[in-house]
Amino acid sequence: MNFKIKKEYLFKHLNYVIKGISNKNIRPILNCIKFDLEKDGLYLSSTDNEIAIKTFIDKKYIEENYTCGKFVVFGKYIYEIIRKLPNEIISIEEVMNSKIFISTTNSSFSLNCNNVDEFPSLELEENKNPIILSNKVLKNIFNQTAFAASTSETRPAITGINFKIKNNILECTATDSYRLAKKTIILDESVKEDINIIIPTKNLIELSKMFSDDEEQVEIHIFNNKVIFKFETIIMLSRLINGTYPDVSKLIPTEFLLKITINMNEFYSLLDRVSLFSTEEEKNTIKLECVDNTVTVKSDIPEIGNVVEKIEVQKNNKENIKIAFSSKYMMDAIKVIDSENIELSFNGEIKPIIIKNPEDENLTQLIVPIKTY
Amino acid sequence: MNFKIKKEYLFKHLNYVIKGISNKNIRPILNCIKFDLEKDGLYLSSTDNEIAIKTFIDKKYIEENYTCGKFVVFGKYIYEIIRKLPNEIISIEEVMNSKIFISTTNSSFSLNCNNVDEFPSLELEENKNPIILSNKVLKNIFNQTAFAASTSETRPAITGINFKIKNNILECTATDSYRLAKKTIILDESVKEDINIIIPTKNLIELSKMFSDDEEQVEIHIFNNKVIFKFETIIMLSRLINGTYPDVSKLIPTEFLLKITINMNEFYSLLDRVSLFSTEEEKNTIKLECVDNTVTVKSDIPEIGNVVEKIEVQKNNKENIKIAFSSKYMMDAIKVIDSENIELSFNGEIKPIIIKNPEDENLTQLIVPIKTY
Repeated sequence: MNFKIKKEYLFKHLNYVIKGISNKNIRPILNCIKFDLEKDGLYLSSTDNEIAIKTFIDKKYIEENYTCGKFVVFGKYIYEIIRKLPNEIISIEEVMNSKIFISTTNSSFSLNCNNVDEFPSLELEENKNPIILSNKVLKNIFNQTAFAASTSETRPAITGINFKIKNNILECTATDSYRLAKKTIILDESVKEDINIIIPTKNLIELSKMFSDDEEQVEIHIFNNKVIFKFETIIMLSRLINGTYPDVSKLIPTEFLLKITINMNEFYSLLDRVSLFSTEEEKNTIKLECVDNTVTVKSDIPEIGNVVEKIEVQKNNKENIKIAFSSKYMMDAIKVIDSENIELSFNGEIKPIIIKNPEDENLTQLIVPIKTY
Repeated sequence: MNFKIKKEYLFKHLNYVIKGISNKNIRPILNCIKFDLEKDGLYLSSTDNEIAIKTFIDKKYIEENYTCGKFVVFGKYIYEIIRKLPNEIISIEEVMNSKIFISTTNSSFSLNCNNVDEFPSLELEENKNPIILSNKVLKNIFNQTAFAASTSETRPAITGINFKIKNNILECTATDSYRLAKKTIILDESVKEDINIIIPTKNLIELSKMFSDDEEQVEIHIFNNKVIFKFETIIMLSRLINGTYPDVSKLIPTEFLLKITINMNEFYSLLDRVSLFSTEEEKNTIKLECVDNTVTVKSDIPEIGNVVEKIEVQKNNKENIKIAFSSKYMMDAIKVIDSENIELSFNGEIKPIIIKNPEDENLTQLIVPIKTY
């Protein structure tokens, strides 16, 4: 096998498949990238058994007169070599003794290869009726929910994002059991069978890093134990998390004692200052009190000092509220809302706080209060 | 004591004194900033006993009708509070029970104070004949030498930068005993007595962060056990390192077997690629060979692969050389040279390599080769 290709084309695609490699893997073959040069072009693939990525470079990007073949090579090394080479034509050639030889005018690298037959087969089959969403919509879903997923392995089910589809309604939920973020999307077509799967959060973050800035359609093929995303020249597989996702539908109330509307930027800066006097050991607890149209937010560390902040708000009625919560969770929630105002809804000091963009019904966030008053 | 000041003025100066605080200090008073409001303006100071910083805000930046006084407050908290407040007029007031009260329209903070009398006196006296250098020249000295200083505490003397002055010649040297960087500066005036001091590298790095982008004169007052830098409204004291700095004058040869001139950017990229096949455990060793006008640089990790790079160079004679050295040290050395070409000088495979900018006699760098051939 030998071929020549411009650095930028090869590097663009190595940037995709490098995300399928976890460097912690003790099986060397799972730290490798497979090169498969066929008549129609070059296929690159990688897998760490939890995730698999395959991408394709059309033969029009490859210099003429190549000979087909396959090899499997250390992902980290081929990636760094190509990254550091100048943007010239790079020649890659398989030589005897399972080695490849990478060269430009002044540089020559020799890299040992692994056995092609040991590379796992990726099983990237398709489904008849994939769900189709744009990369922008998917990226937005991940940005607005992933941060709320649990990072503790004690309950694996909630370390992922739950994708639930009934008819044409997709609900994506993430929670760590102290807070929750739920995004609802209306699909163009209804599904025939209900879907309820859990996708590992970190795989979805890697996926969204591969999306280009242009709007592109993403096909989502769902199977029993895996999900496959197809877009541009890329196929990505993610294993699913086994287990039952908690039923969160009853957690989110539809009626509230009090709704307040606050300027988002001002409230975020206020929280940032109040959080100075909250500590991780105390769950970043801060106290909020709403009397008439004034919200007062307080916090203190007895040996250091205290802070009291005030902000004017709009209310939907004359109720008042006194409640404590994590400043970090509230700031995380606000950060993903893109709007001038946010709406906080309360049902009392021991009931969850609901955070919304008043102009967007599709994103609902919830924070469980902390009992201190 | 009470006064009002615009956030930006106070924050600019807190940014200086915060550098005098090491958060690791077990004596709480050394984590504090002293505020001293006098008739002429506000003095802020901090010290961790190794370094001391004092800065001054003229009364013209302070709102009228203030009352003088002093307090000592946790540096980290007052810094973060002022940083996070909007750019408004901030009111600071001393209240009973050794507390200060910081407020703007909507925010109020109360901070506990420490005893003013416990704050160390800083002894920032002046010398009759300070050395005067511009901040740009000093910054350049630090950038071009500091990286070569030792970070190991086994030989404290070489963790600092050596400042040696004889007549009007200032020589600044840093070494970790495997490499060396020496910068020479001609002073406007000669010193009466020779100077030979060692200043802790980290203090000089903090100092250079305080320099503004405008050209300013820096007065350097040297004493037996300390050095004091005065510039703009700032005074910084640094303790000196006790001990004798190694005499490096005989290390740098004046005659060479061979000098080669190489394009700097191309050589740096080449080293960056070759370093991929060098490891920290093996001291990042790479091998260079110069035959005729071609330099070949090689490296290998047997289980992974190898690299061979070639580059055309100019030579001052027909000698050839074969030598091994640390790719990291060579890259560090080249990084601080701002020139199209660099000059490497050799006296054989076990003699130091000298690195220079061919157009600048004032910076000399040395790397000890590694015996492998």
